[in-house]
Amino acid sequence: MTGWLAIAGLGPGNEALITPEVSSALAEATDVVGYIPYVARVAPRSGLTLHPSDNRVELDRSRHALEMASQGRRVVVVSSGDPGVFAMAAAVFEAVEAGPAPWCDLDIRVLPGITAMLAASARAGAPLGHDFCTINLSDNLKPWSVIEKRLRLAVEADFAMAFYNPRSKARPEGFERTLKLLQSCCEPGRLILFARAVSTPDEALTVVPLAQATPEMADMRTMVIVGSSRTRMIDRTGPPIIYTPRSVPQ
Amino acid sequence: MTGWLAIAGLGPGNEALITPEVSSALAEATDVVGYIPYVARVAPRSGLTLHPSDNRVELDRSRHALEMASQGRRVVVVSSGDPGVFAMAAAVFEAVEAGPAPWCDLDIRVLPGITAMLAASARAGAPLGHDFCTINLSDNLKPWSVIEKRLRLAVEADFAMAFYNPRSKARPEGFERTLKLLQSCCEPGRLILFARAVSTPDEALTVVPLAQATPEMADMRTMVIVGSSRTRMIDRTGPPIIYTPRSVPQ
Repeated sequence: MTGWLAIAGLGPGNEALITPEVSSALAEATDVVGYIPYVARVAPRSGLTLHPSDNRVELDRSRHALEMASQGRRVVVVSSGDPGVFAMAAAVFEAVEAGPAPWCDLDIRVLPGITAMLAASARAGAPLGHDFCTINLSDNLKPWSVIEKRLRLAVEADFAMAFYNPRSKARPEGFERTLKLLQSCCEPGRLILFARAVSTPDEALTVVPLAQATPEMADMRTMVIVGSSRTRMIDRTGPPIIYTPRSVPQ
Repeated sequence: MTGWLAIAGLGPGNEALITPEVSSALAEATDVVGYIPYVARVAPRSGLTLHPSDNRVELDRSRHALEMASQGRRVVVVSSGDPGVFAMAAAVFEAVEAGPAPWCDLDIRVLPGITAMLAASARAGAPLGHDFCTINLSDNLKPWSVIEKRLRLAVEADFAMAFYNPRSKARPEGFERTLKLLQSCCEPGRLILFARAVSTPDEALTVVPLAQATPEMADMRTMVIVGSSRTRMIDRTGPPIIYTPRSVPQ
């Protein structure tokens, strides 16, 4: 049996957002590896071993998956969203580079998925319809000074901004600082979207002007999107639509 | 009949990357509207009218789709990739805002898709595995000075950068300027990925150090991803893997 490793994105939560490519890989797999709540999204079946593991053990999990693939197993590492955006793909390649030489020549494929910012953007309208940036607000793996510098430069560039991992119980202060920084250098009417658990039964979307945003509006299941200076809201009977026009005037 | 409008992403080209949500919308539609090559990806069937239109008529196309939905038809506007990233979603909302008041209360949904940068990133490894920005290099709808400013600030922020629409026959000079700017302010070994026609039979991936990049390496079917200063390459027997580690040292 020739082993392989697929690093697959399960999308934001709804089954209808999982690509057929990912479903096929899961159907052929002998082993599924990942963070507990993501592995729980894979239906058990005969011949498939599920290997759920805890958060923050990404390198151990990667080595385990690579080891099994090198022994001939067909392994899928699952992430929510897209595996290439603040998820397992980079962790697996870190483990490949630091691991035994034969790991480099394994059959490793990354299978893209619908990442949280695009699912959130779609539900709210099109806030990422013009140039934007994507920042992980967790300072577990980078100093806070780097995050702050990137926020200031992103405002100067007038990018819309998508924030992953805005706030956890262990790090409540980072998002508070982020809001203070943005409130100090953006106009008070700048639109900000809090999109929680998009595409699941818990989905909740809130759009407020930046001046009214508070840290408690975000948790780890929330995707935050800050508009550019040109992002607009269409008021209507249903939920509001926010979008960023395609053009910047001369 | 109650009309609706879905703005759907067909992904980068391969059928296996179209979400079930988008396939369902296409199966229920009475009309499909979009740029000629994207409409050509939808299989004709009885009861479905295809409305292909030329490039650069996004607002006319949007108004046509909205008009049909308001008359009770079930309309899908198709984009390649994700409709919210430099595609039809923002154009439709521009048309909604400028159009007759009842258009605001139509049933309009955006159905996300696998956008080109995430498909390209997946094929090459994980170059967008850390903070990044996404810039449309076309200056059709914004002045070149805005693009240049954003490029300089993105380098200063040390974002990886994903470029859409890098180069067309009508605009060959923009990408040349982009490369010159990046070559003047990044180290020569900075990695750059040219990913053409990802997931189609024409797929071709090239990774070179920035010093060796030339304008001819890109065309309108190419997604360009410039690594951050920390993006790395794993040399191996198969195609190279590039990835951006998850961490920035203190």
